[in-house]
Amino acid sequence: MFEKKMRLDALYSFYGKMLTDKQNEIMDLFCNMDYSLGEISEINDISRQAVHDTIKRTEKVLEHYEQQLGLYERFSDKQRTFEKILQLIEEYESTHLETLILNIRELVEKEIE
Amino acid sequence: MFEKKMRLDALYSFYGKMLTDKQNEIMDLFCNMDYSLGEISEINDISRQAVHDTIKRTEKVLEHYEQQLGLYERFSDKQRTFEKILQLIEEYESTHLETLILNIRELVEKEIE
Repeated sequence: MFEKKMRLDALYSFYGKMLTDKQNEIMDLFCNMDYSLGEISEINDISRQAVHDTIKRTEKVLEHYEQQLGLYERFSDKQRTFEKILQLIEEYESTHLETLILNIRELVEKEIE
Repeated sequence: MFEKKMRLDALYSFYGKMLTDKQNEIMDLFCNMDYSLGEISEINDISRQAVHDTIKRTEKVLEHYEQQLGLYERFSDKQRTFEKILQLIEEYESTHLETLILNIRELVEKEIE
């Protein structure tokens, strides 16, 4: 559930500009402001069900963009490389500095080629 | 001129899936296959001017997506960080390994936070 919300937040940050004003208004409250369905329903004076349906429909639109463009996946790959580098740095032993550098270099070169 | 083409190639690789089939056909030849306007005009049996106009129009569409979404810029930022890390590694002196690691760590942490 938490991962599903994280993915929705990320897809919204990637493709939100492609949505309609109405969709954007609700998704901004849901994703950026972390409002609940009930709170959004009060703010917009629409039913909780209508908020729920809008979010579900918008999620499909965002997933469609990701399926088409795959830019979130491409971006996540880079993030995973940065995380790997940080992990290598955190785990290294000072006697193996040269190896650490070689490993980092290998990861980075794969990203650049 | 060369940089303009590089940017067009990159934008096409990012947002090409949003184009029409006809635009895609011409852009694939121009960006991925590196065909000239003349060659594309022969292959598609249309005038060189028509190829030129299609590419110009498509470039505007791609720039519009980038203006809306800015994902190429976001992606390029990551690439620049990888390039900086590689440069640091290539320039380091073996007496300053600890400093090198600290510098890499700083760059990577900025990307992850």
